[in-house]
Amino acid sequence: MAGFGALIADSPLFKVYLYWGAILIVKMLSMAFFTARRRMRSNAYANPEDAVSHPGAKVVLDDPDVERVRRAHRNDLENVVPFLLLCPLYLATGPGVTLATNLIRMFAVARIAHTALYLNEVPVLRGVAWVVGLAVTLFMAGATIIYSC
Amino acid sequence: MAGFGALIADSPLFKVYLYWGAILIVKMLSMAFFTARRRMRSNAYANPEDAVSHPGAKVVLDDPDVERVRRAHRNDLENVVPFLLLCPLYLATGPGVTLATNLIRMFAVARIAHTALYLNEVPVLRGVAWVVGLAVTLFMAGATIIYSC
Amino acid sequence: MAGFGALIADSPLFKVYLYWGAILIVKMLSMAFFTARRRMRSNAYANPEDAVSHPGAKVVLDDPDVERVRRAHRNDLENVVPFLLLCPLYLATGPGVTLATNLIRMFAVARIAHTALYLNEVPVLRGVAWVVGLAVTLFMAGATIIYSC
Repeated sequence: MAGFGALIADSPLFKVYLYWGAILIVKMLSMAFFTARRRMRSNAYANPEDAVSHPGAKVVLDDPDVERVRRAHRNDLENVVPFLLLCPLYLATGPGVTLATNLIRMFAVARIAHTALYLNEVPVLRGVAWVVGLAVTLFMAGATIIYSC
Repeated sequence: MAGFGALIADSPLFKVYLYWGAILIVKMLSMAFFTARRRMRSNAYANPEDAVSHPGAKVVLDDPDVERVRRAHRNDLENVVPFLLLCPLYLATGPGVTLATNLIRMFAVARIAHTALYLNEVPVLRGVAWVVGLAVTLFMAGATIIYSC
Repeated sequence: MAGFGALIADSPLFKVYLYWGAILIVKMLSMAFFTARRRMRSNAYANPEDAVSHPGAKVVLDDPDVERVRRAHRNDLENVVPFLLLCPLYLATGPGVTLATNLIRMFAVARIAHTALYLNEVPVLRGVAWVVGLAVTLFMAGATIIYSC
């Protein structure tokens, strides 16, 4: 059975989506802590009113270490947010439970790996993690379009 | 009763979520008007094809006043979007109506205050508003993870 | 009938939302391919670990062609994401099928045009496409607020 009305408490996919959706949102929010930590270490703040309260701090908008965390954060906005917007649409098409569960898990693992690899400056594997996440989202989008057209 | 199917018209949380969700989206979209106003005042445009139609305008990507509004806007993307993605998941776990209503209201007030404090260059209270919004989202994420694992 | 429970498989708006939601997400994700292509053409990479594997490549964070695609991508995050967050709330208020279907189609066409016009440096029509998308979202937000307050 398809539809949002079917995503109820006794549906197995309902809990998978709630669990991994919440995990991915915590992961995405955690980027702000990494940015704040980097700003403190580099003494590089974006706002003059923030810099005055830290002795020796400067207003810097191009600190390489801070910008790396901000790029990883923006990459999450560009990839995790579309996935979380699409996932309930895909689940509402009534996909197989095993397939949908594994797609959601694969996306979550790929994005957690992507952040770790980005912050640690690992080039090729970071690209692989990004492609895996993108491929899962595009597969779900394709299945949703085929179902609904 | 839990699940998206329970978020129907006669559920009290349904209307709270619709009301504050729409308010937060209007608040977030309004940042574009602040950016446009700032660009006109500073005569600082991001695209050459935009600058040619304004006499005396330049292509500037680091005007401090424009960038402040854009940072406040990006902060909304980083915080309001995850909240709006998570909120239906949290509501689908069947939380208490009073608690959930007050969490949603608290988040909305904190984020409206955050924007006002950011644009007016108020440092410490802006941090408090950001932490309140983040704490509400993390609490909802924790409740959703506990419910679904 | 209103509510998420009404957005089931036999509701006509359900399939319209699934179809155009998935199309818009693919459109938004495609911006990453345009960025990657531009980085390769300009030999301008954001990370030192990415630049080393391309002969002659430099770490450049202000290449005009790359930044244009990134601005178009960010404009999607600022406009398409709020629309996709708001759309299920608006649909849950039980709007007329013809009105809601045409609003969703109008938004999708406006945003696809916006990207094409931005990447081809067309100034005035790009603004029109942006305003059409914004007007649709604000109309849906207004209807949702009136319904729920």
